[in-house]
Amino acid sequence: MRDTFEVRAHDGAGRLGELTVPRAGVTVETPALLPVVNPHVQSVEPARLERVFGAEIIITNSYIIHGSDTLYEPAREEGLAELLDFSGAIMTDSGSFQLAEYGDIDVTTAEILAFQREIGSHIATPVDIPTPPDADREQAVAEWETTRERLGVAAEMDTGEMLVTAPVQGGVHVDVRERAGSEAAATGLDVFPIGAVVPLMNEYRFRELVEVVAAAKRGLPVDAPVHLFGAGHPMMFALAAALGCDLFDSAAYALYARDDRYLTVRGTEHLDELAYFPCECPTCSGHTPAELRGMDDDDRHRLLAEHNLAVSFGEVRRVRQAIRRGNLFELLETRTRGHPALLDGYRTLLDYADQLEANDPVSKDAFFYLSAESARRPEVIRHHRRLARLDVPEELVVTAGAPGESGWRLVPPFGPVPPTLSDVYPLTAELPDRIDDAAYEAAVDGVRALVEAHPDATVELRHDGWPKRALERAPDTVTVARLGGPEADTDSRDDGGS
Amino acid sequence: MRDTFEVRAHDGAGRLGELTVPRAGVTVETPALLPVVNPHVQSVEPARLERVFGAEIIITNSYIIHGSDTLYEPAREEGLAELLDFSGAIMTDSGSFQLAEYGDIDVTTAEILAFQREIGSHIATPVDIPTPPDADREQAVAEWETTRERLGVAAEMDTGEMLVTAPVQGGVHVDVRERAGSEAAATGLDVFPIGAVVPLMNEYRFRELVEVVAAAKRGLPVDAPVHLFGAGHPMMFALAAALGCDLFDSAAYALYARDDRYLTVRGTEHLDELAYFPCECPTCSGHTPAELRGMDDDDRHRLLAEHNLAVSFGEVRRVRQAIRRGNLFELLETRTRGHPALLDGYRTLLDYADQLEANDPVSKDAFFYLSAESARRPEVIRHHRRLARLDVPEELVVTAGAPGESGWRLVPPFGPVPPTLSDVYPLTAELPDRIDDAAYEAAVDGVRALVEAHPDATVELRHDGWPKRALERAPDTVTVARLGGPEADTDSRDDGGS
Repeated sequence: MRDTFEVRAHDGAGRLGELTVPRAGVTVETPALLPVVNPHVQSVEPARLERVFGAEIIITNSYIIHGSDTLYEPAREEGLAELLDFSGAIMTDSGSFQLAEYGDIDVTTAEILAFQREIGSHIATPVDIPTPPDADREQAVAEWETTRERLGVAAEMDTGEMLVTAPVQGGVHVDVRERAGSEAAATGLDVFPIGAVVPLMNEYRFRELVEVVAAAKRGLPVDAPVHLFGAGHPMMFALAAALGCDLFDSAAYALYARDDRYLTVRGTEHLDELAYFPCECPTCSGHTPAELRGMDDDDRHRLLAEHNLAVSFGEVRRVRQAIRRGNLFELLETRTRGHPALLDGYRTLLDYADQLEANDPVSKDAFFYLSAESARRPEVIRHHRRLARLDVPEELVVTAGAPGESGWRLVPPFGPVPPTLSDVYPLTAELPDRIDDAAYEAAVDGVRALVEAHPDATVELRHDGWPKRALERAPDTVTVARLGGPEADTDSRDDGGS
Repeated sequence: MRDTFEVRAHDGAGRLGELTVPRAGVTVETPALLPVVNPHVQSVEPARLERVFGAEIIITNSYIIHGSDTLYEPAREEGLAELLDFSGAIMTDSGSFQLAEYGDIDVTTAEILAFQREIGSHIATPVDIPTPPDADREQAVAEWETTRERLGVAAEMDTGEMLVTAPVQGGVHVDVRERAGSEAAATGLDVFPIGAVVPLMNEYRFRELVEVVAAAKRGLPVDAPVHLFGAGHPMMFALAAALGCDLFDSAAYALYARDDRYLTVRGTEHLDELAYFPCECPTCSGHTPAELRGMDDDDRHRLLAEHNLAVSFGEVRRVRQAIRRGNLFELLETRTRGHPALLDGYRTLLDYADQLEANDPVSKDAFFYLSAESARRPEVIRHHRRLARLDVPEELVVTAGAPGESGWRLVPPFGPVPPTLSDVYPLTAELPDRIDDAAYEAAVDGVRALVEAHPDATVELRHDGWPKRALERAPDTVTVARLGGPEADTDSRDDGGS
């Protein structure tokens, strides 16, 4: 058990945790959002981030301070906490971003880590190499070798109580990301940022983002705190949290505001396109878009930054509450309807249902079936797997008929359910009346899973007019019968959408 | 053109409008939320509803005032605006709710309308009969006859500048609701509440709710302002607005608060179940659930009522902004993932795509494909219908291949697209990379629509590995060919979820 991070609750691969930051003397609740504080220009002062928005942790850039005539000495003399006027945890970046942008920086990992310690950083970062998404595998591997060496340097240094991060790189090459995750964990360092994903997020490549994060997570142990570097848009916090990311950082709140862009959980709006503020925050309840458009730049940008922060912290609370209640997938169903690319991300996430299932609680509050995608949730996979372990009578009827009937119930999207499990989560799932084909198909896949695990059992499937395309998925050895009538020839039972 | 209501913009059957309320001297922007003000007990004072939450219109109950020893005289002497301290529009209910609850009330339509006029109501209501959902057709018809007579009485009365509503009843019998809509419109009265739907909403029977509202709307002219009586939960504002409802009223904000229930756009939470406030409003950014639980009843209920109001008015702004931008369906895709019963409502709404299409703008900002349900949107229906009117070459190739290829493009979920339309809304739709079968199937349905309208054309469909279940929907006269290979035998192209 890692002594600085404790997972308190799981929902799928998402989790609530506590990150203890010894040098700050604080414990940060996760998932957490770290507002990026530019040491030169602050749209919203760190003290206000703490007091009004509840920020427990922020991130700033030690490389900028290191290179600044005006900040270098004050930071060394006063320390970051006083310089920034922030009493929570302060994480520092190392200049890797500048390295990626400009190709070169003038500090080594040893130098910048020593500097971070000197200025009182609580969580410091080595100089890793951010491999961009268009890099080929060879480049990704070579750059990871360099990063790994630097993590080795960091691990050997005396950094006192300061936590040190071990970034995970590898571009879009999932095998490299997985290996990087496992090698980063082996350094014994403390926090694991998944790096160089900003281009994927900026280009709405959520499908690849999910693949990359899932790969890094496979390499990392479950008790490793994971930071998704540069994830600052609230529309994807739920998706990132569902993959098991614990920390996000946002410069977006300030950068977008300066461009008159307005964050929402469904995407980005431009102030010019808003006739009404689609938000409840104090800025948006107290002003109209027209009023903001009439303000001078400073006032307008500050209010937009405050809105952007409010919605970002609000979404973190929604994600935490969803994990606590065990309905993070229900939140995902909503959030991933913000943009087709987010739906791609969700569909890809469900490819990893196995991986998500590993730490998913056996029982949660409720299971809502909310789209064809719900048929692929980890709870469905788990039930199919459980069917292999159940005792099955030699002759078994699975029936979609009324509960009074003998036999096991056939329940979309899960499949066969023995009487002992019928009142047990997730088989108590709430479905729409209008069930889509995906739910029927998943149920018949459950029958298939049962038959494959119990090849000697004789199984009869009785349905009340299920769609042909679902019934066709039953193994040939299963007798299919329609309750109270001839075999179904329904193409699709309902126009549920599929 | 009705002179008290003007529709300013449409999105599907949803619309932005302006309701002029002559006796109040104000114009109310719609969709609008009318907080219900209990004349005896006010959780949040009307002046605060106006100043802090932006309420332009409220509703109170004239029957309660009529029967109250303490309010009867003050209301007559001061008038409602002064009694309630509210400068916007004030609508009054008549006691129909009490009639439904207690079976009898002691005023006639003529009496209560005269009283409403006397106390300065701006929009008054006759005593209609709220037919409950379990009533049979005969009862629904008989009760509607009574209501219609009373509307006749109301229409004959001298009510001055006061607007008068004509409630639409009929229980769950859609033919009765449609007839009631058309007969209510024929009275010449001003505002059209769809009544007695609260039991449907309370029991999450959104499928029937959609059927009932769609039926009433078919009976009403498009320029009639429609009030969904008792619709106070923000989770269903988008759905109701998409059906063409303009006014909602909420007692829920106060009633739920007294029960420690907390409204969200995804459903209702109980304060005891909240570890984090999933909201950005001033109450929720300024307090934690634990703090509220520690307060005395009055403070706690007031803050919960203020949250409930904030999220309700916030959702009204989101709905308005969505209609303005033409992405109300995108909002619906999100909202109807709040509960399986809301998904049923959305699936049922899409049964009426034809009806929704009638006033839908030809061009909007963007079309996001966000679920299998998106394949059934009105824009898809419209394109299929447009195919019948296009000139089609005698020999036509429709191809899913690269844009360079000759012929028409075959675009999920729309179908065949001639070169002249390829950059025109909605054919510029954004889809996920992982397309579900529903989108392919709808595209092939488009081919079918084209062939049915142009039986003499020879049509070849070229695809790049489309799912068999989609290709099977092509008419027999269409040649199906796989680009660069043998004919597809893909069961399903992608695990997009269906």
